[in-house]
Amino acid sequence: MRLLNGQLQDTISMADRAFQFGDGVFRTLRCEGGQIEFWQRHYTRLQQDCAALGMTCPTEAVLLEDLRQLASIDAALKIIITRGETARGYGAPDSLQINRIVQAAALPNYPEELHQQGANVRVCSTRASWQPALAGVKHLNRLENVLARREWQDPSIFEGLMLDRDGLVIEGVMSNVLVLCDTHLFTPKLDQSGVNGVMCEVVFNAALQHGFAVEKRALTLDEVKKADAVWLTNSLVGLLPVANICDQHFPSHPAQALLSKAVNHLRQLEKFAIVELPDMPKG
Amino acid sequence: MRLLNGQLQDTISMADRAFQFGDGVFRTLRCEGGQIEFWQRHYTRLQQDCAALGMTCPTEAVLLEDLRQLASIDAALKIIITRGETARGYGAPDSLQINRIVQAAALPNYPEELHQQGANVRVCSTRASWQPALAGVKHLNRLENVLARREWQDPSIFEGLMLDRDGLVIEGVMSNVLVLCDTHLFTPKLDQSGVNGVMCEVVFNAALQHGFAVEKRALTLDEVKKADAVWLTNSLVGLLPVANICDQHFPSHPAQALLSKAVNHLRQLEKFAIVELPDMPKG
Repeated sequence: MRLLNGQLQDTISMADRAFQFGDGVFRTLRCEGGQIEFWQRHYTRLQQDCAALGMTCPTEAVLLEDLRQLASIDAALKIIITRGETARGYGAPDSLQINRIVQAAALPNYPEELHQQGANVRVCSTRASWQPALAGVKHLNRLENVLARREWQDPSIFEGLMLDRDGLVIEGVMSNVLVLCDTHLFTPKLDQSGVNGVMCEVVFNAALQHGFAVEKRALTLDEVKKADAVWLTNSLVGLLPVANICDQHFPSHPAQALLSKAVNHLRQLEKFAIVELPDMPKG
Repeated sequence: MRLLNGQLQDTISMADRAFQFGDGVFRTLRCEGGQIEFWQRHYTRLQQDCAALGMTCPTEAVLLEDLRQLASIDAALKIIITRGETARGYGAPDSLQINRIVQAAALPNYPEELHQQGANVRVCSTRASWQPALAGVKHLNRLENVLARREWQDPSIFEGLMLDRDGLVIEGVMSNVLVLCDTHLFTPKLDQSGVNGVMCEVVFNAALQHGFAVEKRALTLDEVKKADAVWLTNSLVGLLPVANICDQHFPSHPAQALLSKAVNHLRQLEKFAIVELPDMPKG
């Protein structure tokens, strides 16, 4: 189900620049029990990403009104902001009206044991592109993720790691990567490639509060494989331990319970109710 | 005016993966006097680009039927092939039905003196991304071109050059680049970045037939600025001499007339009639 500029609609003009050029940004939100997780962080990031592309970001009130209209109690929500519609060519006037799309789908049905057993991860041959002008931004040019996802069919493999031109680990096809070495929690520096995910930032904050030394830096595949523990993050799967990267096995690590609890604490603090449940006390 | 899978239509499902991820390819065709220039080359390239993304390419007959339905006597035509429609996520079944779009717009209205005086060219600070899995392919992830085109407003500047991470010249925002050094015609090797354009290939073939040594290779900005002559190419503007790159002026060069004539010869040979003109002898 989708809203286009606040109206229930399934189609969009083919003049829209997201269709023609991938000219826009998006966010994926988890809504559970009528509450959106980490809404403020997502909205701040959306503002930053719109600014990076020189687009106007809708106000928070307008987006929340859309989300309220569309959201069911549990849903995977997606916001897409496009630069708008033009007839032909890369150029666009600054005055162009953005298009604002909100869509709702069912939450993905992850196997119950996934978070207990951890994820099996492969390494993709499709590399993450080098593009500092877009690095970090959650934009609509996602062909490299599509090609990387096409590399495997085996349903027992949850994710594929993408390396950059220099062989550094950038991210998973649909997730960010966190690595624990002793008491240091590292995540790849995403100033040349990759997408800055909100959930990765949440884990970073949680780890800092619990005395971990945290750092964004360059990480080789070898460093990741030799780590004490590895996690994947995204807004839908949350914090997911990695069980294997190819032949490298990671036994379950005591930091898992600690980080998981800390993330859940932030999750409770940073929920934003958009559907009022009948038996829920009003906040 | 647009056709979606052969039907007149202006909108498309927002589940289409071109809208969600830029998951598709395109071609821009020049139609003049009811005839499409270099159709066979465009169709071959479309087949190659679809194969690069693992998508089925429509048959030539189906596309020509669309083009006939839509084309006016003079038009800028665009073909877009998308992987099709999915509910959520990067994965897509191999059996997915592609969407096939053909659109027609007026030919761009270039000033009459443009080809005589040559183009003014700037150098963009937005770099061309490094992505060997997509290099050469005319795909729908064009955000870097959009950002580069946003760098200037001055209408006297026709084009901006895009360099890669290593400072090598890759292409213009909407064109390929050809460089003459003595009797050698060079164009950047596009195996890491950039889009292989049909018109660049045509000029390459024409130059080879006329005794130039032609080569695809790495070209620094300094080498391009020191060249005897520089051209831009795309399907709409054809072969366009460069007058200036920033402060570097290029006086008109005798090879211009020769190459222009050779390209026009190939243009005549490789036209494909899709609109029958009343006074045109049937071929």
